[in-house]
Parts: sequence; structure tokens; C-alpha cells
Amino acid sequence: MKALVYGGPGIREWKDVPDAKIEAPTDAIVRVDTTTICGTDLHILKGDVAYIPAGRILGHEAVGTIVAQGDAVTETQVGDRVLVSCVNGCGRCKYCKQGRYGACLNGGGWILGHTVDGTQAELVRVQFADMSLYKVPEELDNESVIMLADALPTGYEIGVLNGRTQPGDVVVVIGAGPVGMSAIQTAQLHSPAHTIAVDFDEGRLEAARRLGADLTIKPNEDVRALVDSVTDGLGADVVIEAVGIPATLQQACTLVRNGGHIANVGVHGSPVELPMQDLWIHDITLTTGLIDGYTTADLLKMVQAGVLESKSLITHRFTLDQMMEAYDVFGNAAETKCLKAVLHRA
Amino acid sequence: MKALVYGGPGIREWKDVPDAKIEAPTDAIVRVDTTTICGTDLHILKGDVAYIPAGRILGHEAVGTIVAQGDAVTETQVGDRVLVSCVNGCGRCKYCKQGRYGACLNGGGWILGHTVDGTQAELVRVQFADMSLYKVPEELDNESVIMLADALPTGYEIGVLNGRTQPGDVVVVIGAGPVGMSAIQTAQLHSPAHTIAVDFDEGRLEAARRLGADLTIKPNEDVRALVDSVTDGLGADVVIEAVGIPATLQQACTLVRNGGHIANVGVHGSPVELPMQDLWIHDITLTTGLIDGYTTADLLKMVQAGVLESKSLITHRFTLDQMMEAYDVFGNAAETKCLKAVLHRA
Amino acid sequence: MKALVYGGPGIREWKDVPDAKIEAPTDAIVRVDTTTICGTDLHILKGDVAYIPAGRILGHEAVGTIVAQGDAVTETQVGDRVLVSCVNGCGRCKYCKQGRYGACLNGGGWILGHTVDGTQAELVRVQFADMSLYKVPEELDNESVIMLADALPTGYEIGVLNGRTQPGDVVVVIGAGPVGMSAIQTAQLHSPAHTIAVDFDEGRLEAARRLGADLTIKPNEDVRALVDSVTDGLGADVVIEAVGIPATLQQACTLVRNGGHIANVGVHGSPVELPMQDLWIHDITLTTGLIDGYTTADLLKMVQAGVLESKSLITHRFTLDQMMEAYDVFGNAAETKCLKAVLHRA
Amino acid sequence: MKALVYGGPGIREWKDVPDAKIEAPTDAIVRVDTTTICGTDLHILKGDVAYIPAGRILGHEAVGTIVAQGDAVTETQVGDRVLVSCVNGCGRCKYCKQGRYGACLNGGGWILGHTVDGTQAELVRVQFADMSLYKVPEELDNESVIMLADALPTGYEIGVLNGRTQPGDVVVVIGAGPVGMSAIQTAQLHSPAHTIAVDFDEGRLEAARRLGADLTIKPNEDVRALVDSVTDGLGADVVIEAVGIPATLQQACTLVRNGGHIANVGVHGSPVELPMQDLWIHDITLTTGLIDGYTTADLLKMVQAGVLESKSLITHRFTLDQMMEAYDVFGNAAETKCLKAVLHRA
Repeated sequence: MKALVYGGPGIREWKDVPDAKIEAPTDAIVRVDTTTICGTDLHILKGDVAYIPAGRILGHEAVGTIVAQGDAVTETQVGDRVLVSCVNGCGRCKYCKQGRYGACLNGGGWILGHTVDGTQAELVRVQFADMSLYKVPEELDNESVIMLADALPTGYEIGVLNGRTQPGDVVVVIGAGPVGMSAIQTAQLHSPAHTIAVDFDEGRLEAARRLGADLTIKPNEDVRALVDSVTDGLGADVVIEAVGIPATLQQACTLVRNGGHIANVGVHGSPVELPMQDLWIHDITLTTGLIDGYTTADLLKMVQAGVLESKSLITHRFTLDQMMEAYDVFGNAAETKCLKAVLHRA
Repeated sequence: MKALVYGGPGIREWKDVPDAKIEAPTDAIVRVDTTTICGTDLHILKGDVAYIPAGRILGHEAVGTIVAQGDAVTETQVGDRVLVSCVNGCGRCKYCKQGRYGACLNGGGWILGHTVDGTQAELVRVQFADMSLYKVPEELDNESVIMLADALPTGYEIGVLNGRTQPGDVVVVIGAGPVGMSAIQTAQLHSPAHTIAVDFDEGRLEAARRLGADLTIKPNEDVRALVDSVTDGLGADVVIEAVGIPATLQQACTLVRNGGHIANVGVHGSPVELPMQDLWIHDITLTTGLIDGYTTADLLKMVQAGVLESKSLITHRFTLDQMMEAYDVFGNAAETKCLKAVLHRA
Repeated sequence: MKALVYGGPGIREWKDVPDAKIEAPTDAIVRVDTTTICGTDLHILKGDVAYIPAGRILGHEAVGTIVAQGDAVTETQVGDRVLVSCVNGCGRCKYCKQGRYGACLNGGGWILGHTVDGTQAELVRVQFADMSLYKVPEELDNESVIMLADALPTGYEIGVLNGRTQPGDVVVVIGAGPVGMSAIQTAQLHSPAHTIAVDFDEGRLEAARRLGADLTIKPNEDVRALVDSVTDGLGADVVIEAVGIPATLQQACTLVRNGGHIANVGVHGSPVELPMQDLWIHDITLTTGLIDGYTTADLLKMVQAGVLESKSLITHRFTLDQMMEAYDVFGNAAETKCLKAVLHRA
Repeated sequence: MKALVYGGPGIREWKDVPDAKIEAPTDAIVRVDTTTICGTDLHILKGDVAYIPAGRILGHEAVGTIVAQGDAVTETQVGDRVLVSCVNGCGRCKYCKQGRYGACLNGGGWILGHTVDGTQAELVRVQFADMSLYKVPEELDNESVIMLADALPTGYEIGVLNGRTQPGDVVVVIGAGPVGMSAIQTAQLHSPAHTIAVDFDEGRLEAARRLGADLTIKPNEDVRALVDSVTDGLGADVVIEAVGIPATLQQACTLVRNGGHIANVGVHGSPVELPMQDLWIHDITLTTGLIDGYTTADLLKMVQAGVLESKSLITHRFTLDQMMEAYDVFGNAAETKCLKAVLHRA
């Protein structure tokens, strides 16, 4: 089969590799019909995740068709069209029993395109298939659900829900990339009074307005003043950090109200100096986390019911064998304005 | 001043009474600019609430203007346009400190038009004014907020929130009167996948569809089959009972899923036989309650932000001195199709 | 192997039956080293659960040793000493993913001694073994953990936790049988100010005092007055019903405070008329439920840490082949004063 | 009257000042029968809280007797023996309505001995008396409740409850001063499996063991190894930081498990560099806060019921006019081993 193979820092190739195959009775093999590229893939390619070896097939998002499954898989059948979640779990360990699949103690969690081969390939082996695959309702096409593999539940679980977003809240989302945008979209499920998107890119702010942000601003403008104008000067109820650098998390600390929540979604690569001399007295809750996928089934139900739209993040489309070109476009988002690129089996 | 005075079972009169006046330093006197009639007023008029004496001025909902206030009132000033909540609280007792103003131990709770004179008058005395009055933002007219005096927070707190409504849920509301309709409207703040309205009146079902119900049905049709069709046969996540008779609460018990919530909002006048032989094993949560008003300020903020619309329940309009006629129309809803009648100061 | 076989209403026999054997890769066969009899077994024997066929082996509680397990079982090994929970779950369905194993949609839940053969036998087949078995720490003997198979987590989950017991609460437990007693014991984990046990049997009240109840009373005495004396007349924060007849649930309704919880644990066989004309206004939460076992691992940890004692409920001991005699003694508790009888492999 | 007056950095004097007097109808004047000194008082004395002017009477904890009260005070009477909470609130603002009295928007919060004159005096003016005073049950002496003015609810609300301590948890408390010790004590209300106290002082560790810690260790020993030994290597469920310097908060980050809580109680004077490169993926919740006193009434009820003991923190006793000497002893805790010093009216 063909696959996008990581060849060490800076090196990627779309090339022939051995077919994925069943290795355990709980495995399924999925033919990849639709996949996408995540910012994390770019991080890995740069060599930022040092322990990932050359030879790894990247990618952790897919919609596809089951072509084989192990004897212990009971929730699906060969031929089913399924969403492949970026996280899975054994279902039996302490963390899985609490719905924290991302922290699975038995080899689950985020493994695809990370500790095992991933979805940017013609076939992918999915472990713990009963916990990782979601049958796609007939009336929904692949593009309608591919964002549920990672971006949408990440923004929802780690941003909106960790932030305890309530109807009437004022929510600030710092960073309007795919995950920040997903937080903006899914925050609307909880009816905030105002959603403020913060980003340097005017095009992204324009997209944020379409997806639910009623106020937008650049980070070097007076964000606190904007927040104050809709909160009687108290500060935001929820601040979602979706960038992952010290400056943005520190900015979050200046925007949150007494008693408010800071939900960190960004992937940080270095320590961050927090103003504890100010925060200690202010009843702040700061959360971090990796997607668990405990909301994936519900989000799918909401897409099916028309309560949630999830296709708008897609700006570019390719065929699977245009993988190298898709990476070029997605990797140069500043110029191409690519938010999410999807690749379909030809 | 003029007021609508209860004269014993079946008797009401719009007549001259002594002006309302300050009796405690925490009181305010509000000139009633807009008021409305509640189903509860009809109950009282019938004599169903035996302990209410003849001579009581009815009504517990108003928007008005403060004409006088006691020395200890600090949150408002004479001249402010305010929403008068149907509940108030001392703010200091065990229950008020938990936000359960409806259960105030020091003479608060639902008292207006009940244990003290009410709002269907030219002036009303409001006790614990700092806890009961909400300044109305300039850009909102009286009709935009009058439903926040009772119907909307009742449907929201006792129906939607007690029922723990979550995004993606299937919510059934039995009874599409003003409070049931308020539950339908405010349920949308939590993005249910489906909202099913159950009522005998086709006109009310039509209104329910405008306010957020995507499915409607009459109670003598196969409601369970409809619920099953959108829940894989499991049953509803949340059932809100907004009628108050045995048959409807019993129907609620047949519609809820294992692990689901029944939120009773209806005012019951008699015991109800519940099928505990079925319910004991089914992880059901049944809640009851009287409005506390702990969401009133947030609902007001959402109306102001345009996230919530609250004027649609109003079907009929009168001037204050048409009070007797307004009662006739509201009391004969089956024919007049009156959902909510508001009365404005001329 | 020998087993206690239900032979139709009123008929039970300790007799030879075919050995339990592996039927699915997720099964384990456990040699029963310790088991016990539950009030539910007596109900079944009376014929109260009409759909249970003659020939069923009864019993749903055990501590034993794994003698065989299927290929897909990974959490245990042959030879492990394990607690067999009375509930299990597939781990993959909607309900299991929420920890509601009792409501498993794929053939789990309470099945042992109910829809499949149970634990009152020399061997028992345990389905979904990875979800149902808990390794017993070496330092704990079988009697220290057998109550965790059913009684203790039932009283804790359905009584104490459903009732939202908080430090400082006043908790009333109606019915001091094994499950009520378990609720009394586990309520102490949440440090109530007062725990009131209500039962007709003075011996059980005496035991309740040993297990944590600081106040005890008979149901025909003035229970409300006792509750009032420690709640400033407000009523109990939590009332746990552990009997299962109309009179006791109705009594619970008279004891709970405004805003309080009634947690029904009792198994009801008939409808119950509830005073909704009083309850509708009182912010009551009434819950029902079947044990899910989501606390079993934590309770085991607490027994191991010495925070929870669980052996005190055991009043009588037998060998496994004294099964018929043990039933006689447990079935005649009024005279024998038997609270829990355990049977050990000789 | 006599009072302990702050005279600028390093300067304190027990001297004559004008008597406290009623200034608003919601005020009460309390004769101080028992007071104590808090670590915060030492901070203020050092000049660490620069905005506090010379002339301020220090102290924010007292038990006393009401000698006068304003017209709007209704919950108490002159002559009542009362606990004076270190925080109060207006009861009407957004934060007070949520029980966050510490963040009161109308001049409440922690004001005593801070922004207004405090309790280390013969008389103290208490604002918002109905929200700040708690009648002391007759059977409890002053020493039994004085710790409820600050230390105990601070440790409980900001440590134990913010940390979401659950039965069976492993709780680490870093810093065994009065507030850390209060966290250790009140954590027991939630029945942790293990409570680990971390402090350099062996005497304090010994005291911690008496108050509920079953494991103790010095911070420069291998704390993580000790935590691992009782958590299967996962890390602590709850880590309570009760020191307020970078090193201890950073240590907290190394001890918490995936999905666990860090509850910061310590008063920080400088920024803290947090290892976000590790934390971002670990589902951590970090909370901060100032006491609100929303648990004070419940804690008082638990002391009265004998569920909670609160006198053990007191190591030294003085008369009120020995104030200067008491400061000397408390300020030199390393030598005097003073944990809490109380001063009684002679």
C-alpha cells in the first residue's frame, strides 16, 4: 500500500510500504477513504517529537471502510463505513473506565501516527476497534464527519467543556487555527452571550465570525478592554488558549475574571511563567488535557441532527495520492490560507 | 390606586385600594408599567389555594419604575426601570445563601399575589428589593423582559436545568402552555438533538415548533414510538412535565430512558401513583421545585445579547385598566388561543 | 459440580449439575471459595421474578480463584484470587462508557443468578471477566471483601452517592437490612453530622449504632420529630429508602427537607402513591437505581487502606455444602438474627 | 479601647485608639473575647502588602460578644456570642449570590485587618453583620470555634474542596503550617485512602500525624517515590500547596497524577514557572482562591456534632493585653514551635 512515511526531521515521502494487517483479535483494518493533516503532523515532521522513529506512517484522522476485523470485534462489521477517532482505549483500565481514553494504561490513547502507524495511508490498522470506530450514518458524507476524528472533540472537550462554558458566558478563544476554530464552533452549543476570537490573521478572524464568534480582535490590540466592555469590567468567564506558547497563556491570565476558567488546549514546548502573585487570590481554575473522545458519539449525533455543522473548516481538497502536495499547501498556511485540507481516495 | 382584588372563590374586581407604601428599609415601591396574568392566578381565583384571603391583590410579574425605596436599598435608585421577579429572598438564610430564594426562611420566596399584595395594580410594594429587582438595559423594551419575571426562569430552572439537559440530548416537554413553552425555548440554550413537544392543542404545537421543538405530537398518539425513533429505542434523556396531573407525570415515566431525568414543573393538586415496580431499577432522577430566580440575571444578559428571545409567548395586549377583560380572554384560552396576555400602563 | 438450583417457586436443591465452562473469549471460570445469600435470592425463590426459569443456579456474589479464562481476558491470570462483582458490562456500549454497567446494552448488567447461572456453586462462569473481576490484595481475606460483590456498593452508589451525601448532612436510612446497613456504613465516608437508622428490629438498630448510626428509632415512633431535633426543624438532607414498600417510600417523603434528596434503594413490587401535591414545590430529588459497580475498585482500595471496614455485616458462617441450611437460617432472619451468612469452600 | 496597630514596616504597638462604632445600619460592634494571629498578619507587618497604611488595626479572626448592632441587622441580637468570619459579603452582588463572598463587589471580602480595622482589639466593627457573624452554640467554648474564622475553612474550601477530594483518594499536603494542617484535618471529612504531609519540620509532621496524615515526609526526600508506593505509580489524586513559593508549587506539579488536581492555597509573592511542556497533555486542574466562608456554617455544625475537632491547632495561649508577647512567640515559630496562639479577654 501507499503511505506518507516520516523519514526523520524534515523528511517525508509518499511511498510503498507493507499492507496493514490484523495483529490482535480486537484490531480492525480500515481502508482510508478520507483523511486530513493536523498541525501535530507538522510538529512531528520538524523533529519536535524526538522519540518518533523514522519509518513511522503519520496521520491520526480518517473516515474509511472496514476491510477486515479480529474475532473479538463486535460493534462493527466488514464493509461498515466508519470514523476513526484519533484516540482509542482498552476500555478496562482505571482511566478508560472514567472515559479518559487519552490516558489509557494499556496501550491506548493517542497512538495513531505517533507510537504506531497512522491514517495517511491506503490502509490503517486500528487497535481496540470497538472503542475507536464510529459507524457513520448513511445520510452523512465523509467530509461532514472527518473533523470529529480530532479537531472538533479536542476543541470541545479540552476547551469548551474543561472551561465549564455556561449559557450567558463570555468566552475568549486565543488562536483561531483548526482547534481554536473548533472551540468557537462547539462553544455555541452552550449559548455564550459573547464569543471573542483573538488572532493575528484577519482571514481567520473572518472565518471565526462565520463559525460563531461575534467579536474578533488581534492579540496586540486592547483585548482586555474589549472583554471589559461586555463583562462590566469583570473579565471573561472562560478563556480558551489554543496556541501553545508562553505569551498566549500569559495573556489568558490577564483576561479571565475572578472565579473564571482558563482552558489550555495548546501544545506547549517550554515552561511558562505564570503570575501566581496575582492569580493566587482570584479563584482561577486552569485546566490542561489531551482529547479523550468521550464526546465523539454525541457530536456525531448532533451533526446528524443538524445541531452542529462541521464541514466549514475544510478549505482545500486533494486526492490521497496528492499527499505530498497537500502537505505543501497545509504547511504554508500563511500564504495558502489553508485551514484544513482533506484528502479523498480517488 | 387601582388593583385586581381577589374577592373569594370566583370573584375578582378591578377597584380602588389604598396605595402601596414602604414598610421596611429594604422595600421598594414600583409603579407597574407592564404586567401579565399567570395560570396560577386562575387557580387562586378558583379557590384552589384555600389559605389566600379575600382582599388579596393578585399578580407576581411586572416591569415598572421605582417611585420610592427604603434606606437600606442600595442596588437601585428611584426612577430606575426594573424587572420585578416573582420570587425574592432575604439573602441571608441557609436557603438564600444556596441560591434557593424560593425557599427563603425569612419571609421571602414566592409571596407576591400570594401571601402579600401583588403586581396587578398601579403600584406594588416589593420586599427585599435588592434581591428582587433587576435593572432593565435601556435597549430592551418591557415586553422583551416581562417573561423573565416568572415563566422563562421557571421553565429553565425547574425544567431544563433540573433535568440536566445536555447538548445532543433528546428532550420531551409534556404540556405546551406558557411554562412548557418556556422550557422548550430555554432548552435550546443547551443544544438538544431533538425537542419533542406534547400537547392536545394543534395551535400550541405550531407555536412550539416556532420556539424550538422540531417534533410535536398529541399525548394520545404513540409518543413512546416517536421518542424511540430518535433514541435507538432507549427513551428520552430528559422529560419535562409541565401540566401537573397524574396522567402526564405517569406518561413521563414511560418515556424516560434508563439513567434519564424527569423534571416535574407542573403544579399538582393530588397524589400521583408512580410505577416504582418499574422505576426502582432504572436509574431515574425525578425532580420537583419552585422557581428560585437564580438564573434571572443570566437570562436577562442573554436576551440583551440576542442569544435568547422572550417576546414570542405574548399573544394578546391590553391596557392596565382593561384588567377584567384581559382575565376573560386569558381564562378562556381554549377559544381565544391566548398564550400570554400583557397589560401596559396607558 | 454442586450448585444451588432454583426449581420453581418455593423449590431449591443443592445438587450435581454440569461444570461451568468457557463459552466466549472474554469469559473466566472461577472456583467459588466464598459466597453469600442475598435477599434477592429469597425473592426469586418465592417466585417473585416470574421470568426466571426452573434450573437456574442462584447467587451473584463470590470471592474465588480463576481456574480458566478465555483468550481475550488480559487483566487477570489463572490462579488469581478475585472478587466477582454482581454486575458486569461489555465496556463498549453507551451505558458502559458512562460507568452504568448495570444498564449494559450488550448482555451485561446484573445477570448472575438471574439471566445466567450464578455463584452459589462450586464453579461459576463469569462473562466480560475483565470488567467484572477484581484482584484481591494479598493481605485481605475473603470475608473482608465479599460484601463488595453487592451489598456495599449498592448501599453506596444507589443510597449514599445518589443521595449526594455531603459532610455535615443529616442522613436518614429507612430499613437496616444488609443494604441499608451498607448505606449507613458508607455514608460515614462522607462525614454526615448525624446518621439516623429507622427499623422495627432492636437488634438491627443496635448493629446500626455499631456501624455508624448515632441516632436510631422505630418507624412507628415520631421519626419526623427526631429529624427536626437535629435539623432546626427543616428535615433531613438525605433520606435513603432501603425497604421497598409504599409505606417506607411515603415516609421518606415526610422526612426530607426542602431541597433534599430521597435515594430509593429498595426493590419495589408495586406502584407507590407519592404526595405530589406537597412535593411539587419542595425542590426534591428522588433517585432510583441498580448497582453499577463503578465504585467497587475504590471501595476495595479503602478496605485495603483501613478506611472502610466491611466484615461486620457477617453474622453466620457455613461451608459451601451447608448451602441448604444456610438458606434456612438466612430466610428466617427474624428469629435467627442473621444479617449476612457467608459460605466457604471446605 | 486597646488595639494592635500597624505602624509601618516592622512596627506594631498595643495602644489606645478610639472605640469602634456603628457606621452603617448593617454593622455590628463585637467585643473581642478570643482572637488569634495569622501568618498573613506577619506578612503585613513586614511591609509585604504595601498598600496597607500605618494606623491599621490588624487581625481578622475573633470570637466575641455583640455589644451593639445597626437597625438592619436581623440575624443576631446584642449579647449574642458570635464567631467573626475573616470574610464577609454584601449578599447581593453577582459574586455573593454565588457564595463567592471573598470576591464581593460591594466592599466585602477579606477586609478586616486589611482595608478596615481588624479584630486584634477590644472591640471590632463588623460590616454586613448578617453575612459575617455566626452564633456559637452554647456547648462550644471559644477555642473550639476560633479556627473557623479563617484557617479551617481556608484549608477546606481552597484546598480540600477545590481539589475535589473524594473517598479513596491519595492526598498530598505540601506545608504543614496552620492552613496546611487545616487541609489535612478537613480532608479526613472525605475519607482519603492516604494523606501525605510534606514539611521540613519534624514537629509539624508529628502534629500532622495526629490530625490525620498517615504518611509524612520531608520535601527533600523522595516524595514522588512515596506517592508512587500508594498509587500504583500513577501519582496523587490531589496535591494541596500550602506554602506559596515557586519550589513547592513546582513540586506539586511533579506529584499529581494524570487527571488529578493541584489546589493552590499558598499566598504567592512572585511569578512561578510551570512545566507546561509536561502538564499540557496530562488533564491537570490547577485551582487558586481566597476563602469565601461558604462552608463556615457547615463546619460549625460538624464541630457541634463532634464530627470535626478544631482545637488541636492551638499550641499557645495569652491574654489579650499580652498581644505584643504573643506576636513575639508566633513570629518565632521555628524556635517556639508555635502553631496557633490564641488570646483571651482577661
